[in-house]
Amino acid sequence: MRSSEKIKEYVKQLAGQAKDSSRKLALMSADQKNGLLKKIAVSIRKNKGIILEANTKDVKAAEKDSLSKALIDRLLLDERRIEQMAAGLEEVAALDDPVGRMLDKRTRPNGMQIFKISVPIGVIAIIYESRPNVTSDSAGLCIKAGNAVILRGGKEAFYSNKSIADCMRNAIAGCGGPENIIQFVETKERSAVAEILKLDSLIDLVIPRGGESLIKAVTEMSTIPVIKHYKGVCHIFVDKDADLDKALKIIKNAKCQRPGVCNAAETLLVDKAVSEKFLPQAADMLKGEKVELRGCPETMKILRGIKAATEDDWYEEYLDLILSIKVVDGVEEAIKHINKYGSMHSDAIVTENQASALKFLNMVDSAAVYLNASTRFTDGGQFGMGAEIGISTDKIHARGPMGLEELNTYKYVIKGDGQIRD
Amino acid sequence: MRSSEKIKEYVKQLAGQAKDSSRKLALMSADQKNGLLKKIAVSIRKNKGIILEANTKDVKAAEKDSLSKALIDRLLLDERRIEQMAAGLEEVAALDDPVGRMLDKRTRPNGMQIFKISVPIGVIAIIYESRPNVTSDSAGLCIKAGNAVILRGGKEAFYSNKSIADCMRNAIAGCGGPENIIQFVETKERSAVAEILKLDSLIDLVIPRGGESLIKAVTEMSTIPVIKHYKGVCHIFVDKDADLDKALKIIKNAKCQRPGVCNAAETLLVDKAVSEKFLPQAADMLKGEKVELRGCPETMKILRGIKAATEDDWYEEYLDLILSIKVVDGVEEAIKHINKYGSMHSDAIVTENQASALKFLNMVDSAAVYLNASTRFTDGGQFGMGAEIGISTDKIHARGPMGLEELNTYKYVIKGDGQIRD
Repeated sequence: MRSSEKIKEYVKQLAGQAKDSSRKLALMSADQKNGLLKKIAVSIRKNKGIILEANTKDVKAAEKDSLSKALIDRLLLDERRIEQMAAGLEEVAALDDPVGRMLDKRTRPNGMQIFKISVPIGVIAIIYESRPNVTSDSAGLCIKAGNAVILRGGKEAFYSNKSIADCMRNAIAGCGGPENIIQFVETKERSAVAEILKLDSLIDLVIPRGGESLIKAVTEMSTIPVIKHYKGVCHIFVDKDADLDKALKIIKNAKCQRPGVCNAAETLLVDKAVSEKFLPQAADMLKGEKVELRGCPETMKILRGIKAATEDDWYEEYLDLILSIKVVDGVEEAIKHINKYGSMHSDAIVTENQASALKFLNMVDSAAVYLNASTRFTDGGQFGMGAEIGISTDKIHARGPMGLEELNTYKYVIKGDGQIRD
Repeated sequence: MRSSEKIKEYVKQLAGQAKDSSRKLALMSADQKNGLLKKIAVSIRKNKGIILEANTKDVKAAEKDSLSKALIDRLLLDERRIEQMAAGLEEVAALDDPVGRMLDKRTRPNGMQIFKISVPIGVIAIIYESRPNVTSDSAGLCIKAGNAVILRGGKEAFYSNKSIADCMRNAIAGCGGPENIIQFVETKERSAVAEILKLDSLIDLVIPRGGESLIKAVTEMSTIPVIKHYKGVCHIFVDKDADLDKALKIIKNAKCQRPGVCNAAETLLVDKAVSEKFLPQAADMLKGEKVELRGCPETMKILRGIKAATEDDWYEEYLDLILSIKVVDGVEEAIKHINKYGSMHSDAIVTENQASALKFLNMVDSAAVYLNASTRFTDGGQFGMGAEIGISTDKIHARGPMGLEELNTYKYVIKGDGQIRD
């Protein structure tokens, strides 16, 4: 498939099929949808040989192209990871159905009844990179929420993603279901993405999952609404009235427990009133965890010999054992710093002072704001909301963990017996 | 102001001021915000002379440019319309404050408390055409919901809009408030819109209000999330089991009571089982109301002499006393027609058959679906939700009437006492 006209035709047909099948899916009962998810899980287990074979093809190509070890690790599937994919689908099947919730109900003075009811969004396109498990994870969540899904993965995982998508589609077709609720874009051509993002009459939502450049490109090209799952530049602010033991524990957890994820901390802010006392303790602990420190001039006076943080450091999501440190003049400077350099993801204050806490929680403009707890909790499962398709750093429709409820919209159903407007 | 660099600098500065002031506004109490709205209302009444003078300037220019009578009427202000603007602000002040609602609350097994709380969105840009009252109406709703607003009106209403915006800003400044929560784009240059729509780090949401070409252009250019208030191609379907008297009453109301608005009906669908009986009655009534009819071939066999409907007619929002009519083979063909040609706004079925009703209400993919009531009710006030900034035809964030609650987002506030993740 080469010519741009052909690609345009192809993705349009694909999206049209998704739209048609989404109407059938929207009418399915929870049991029917859960049945499909369980069938898909069985099929993924049964076809693990085929999936691993496809994955080997991708990994060999990646090695030939000299991709980084980290990228190849993200790409790599094994029996354990395939089992996680299957088990993940079963977990989603076990969650409550988000469709058909009565969100509001009112009877008007003229007797007309108005019901606000949750319904599927329709067709969702997922544009993602690397990890092949995103193929089944996001398809599972979309289907459970009643949406058809169009999957466009990264070219380095093309054969793995395709084999997983084929397996899912076959499982649905095998039990007489509408396999077109899962659409896999079967071309590596980059222009396919641009064409998908123009189909605003067929696709209702686009979720890009990946690096900064992918998200930027999708946002610029799309005429379809986009919900961005952007980077997490998360902060821990140690207030002058902090319990310093809690602060140490929280920083260690937020920075070191799993540095490669979006809710890990990247910057430590310390009130200057406690910086001389606290920073040496923090540095000791962090050096023991092999964390590289990069400090502002004030920090460097206290922690001699560490690297200087540049202006760029404050914007940086390291996803690694690196921490930038800045001494600030009280909670208000901390808030200002976070609102300027942060990514509106997750930020925490450590303090025993209720007034400072309130100021921070009110004024920091992020999806999740924490008092005396680790930012690592920003996660659908940890919030007790079930699996999530990602963490939205947007403010429109979904903010923070985006789970099944956020994969729905609503409609107003109005029942009358002949009412007209005066 | 001419050079593109200057315009870019200008709108960036404007949006930066809006962002800064939105942080102050977000912390204001309901009383403080209501105080501002009431002050603005007083100021609009007091400055009606200045506003009318500015409006005369616009109207004279419009007459010189030979704008249509309908456009000039939309543009025209008089004492009554100015009083409506002031009264509208006072009505918004009297509504419940949407900020700070507790949307969810949970305590996790580790003792951490999670609160989901409504908060303002931040900075909202309104790109609109014609009617100068949109300037004060939308600013009032945005402020009440805690958002700063950037106003970009049509060039034909430039001086009217500017005088209203000046009046509002002066009223805020006059009582020591942050007047930068209202920003008016003081240039008619078209490139200003393109520059505004790139400022996704400063502006959180764009709401275009106007014709199809405006909305299309904004959607294509914007990297900021857009909620579209698109056209209303609304349908009334008369089922074979309809109470035909109810049907006549509802069609008359939906088509004729106020044909120029988005929730008026544009297409009548009639089940073929009742078409021979019902269409002549409907045609009699509609001709009495001076409605022009355009029919499908089947309709034209029954209502001889009416105009033929073209394929384009089914997509058309007439906003006028014109109605297209199609005979369909049952509720399923009606649903298919609406989902293909409609604009996902408001659609009604008239029937006494509960099975048909359920099918229609479930399967029609529109913001508001009606059983035995007029589509004219799709309106924040009629739904009992208070004033609205428009009717969203999007599915993301807001669907149907977009009022104060939909002008908010939420954040998660998490309170712990040292919790870390395992």
